[in-house]
Amino acid sequence: MPSPFLADPRACAVWNPAKMGKATLFEGSGMLAGLNAFEPGQEHAPHSHAGVDKLYQVVEGRGEFVVGSETRLLERGALVFAPAGVPHGVRNVGEDRLLVLTVMGPPPARASAP
Amino acid sequence: MPSPFLADPRACAVWNPAKMGKATLFEGSGMLAGLNAFEPGQEHAPHSHAGVDKLYQVVEGRGEFVVGSETRLLERGALVFAPAGVPHGVRNVGEDRLLVLTVMGPPPARASAP
Repeated sequence: MPSPFLADPRACAVWNPAKMGKATLFEGSGMLAGLNAFEPGQEHAPHSHAGVDKLYQVVEGRGEFVVGSETRLLERGALVFAPAGVPHGVRNVGEDRLLVLTVMGPPPARASAP
Repeated sequence: MPSPFLADPRACAVWNPAKMGKATLFEGSGMLAGLNAFEPGQEHAPHSHAGVDKLYQVVEGRGEFVVGSETRLLERGALVFAPAGVPHGVRNVGEDRLLVLTVMGPPPARASAP
């Protein structure tokens, strides 16, 4: 088993000047945890996953989150929950980097559409 | 649908002088997210969940985490992943309160043992 501990997950972030960067932190049978890294202006356009819940947490920076028909500007420590099938997205509207922890349950590859 | 946004989840913590306090933040078909709150000296003794992965994140304070045979003292921002079936526990060994975000996938009530 890989180490179950990550003292500073920010060190695992992948930054990509061309588009949102993605890194996987942990994956199990029931859950996939990772980091989404947004340079200023980058976004993850609204999308949805059949049968998969997603939790976001702002690790650093400031992001505009969309879930369904609701939009909110959020900062470090905030949580966002997108239930299975509900469209959701993120945009870095600030001038600093935005780093977001993402947890998906179940991992998308294991989801069975309802 | 309840609001998908929590700007400051710490405000939802439940502190209990008798034992670890628990609060549910979000629950969906694939995931349960909540807070475990530990006064100094309180612990959640090692236990395991068949078919359920658990992710911990230290929100504030300092905790001693056990996963399988490994133990680590961790602080704010650290992540801990306990795969399904692997024993895990938490103890507040500091003098300040310890607040931990927990995510379980799938929610225990929906897990089917392997």
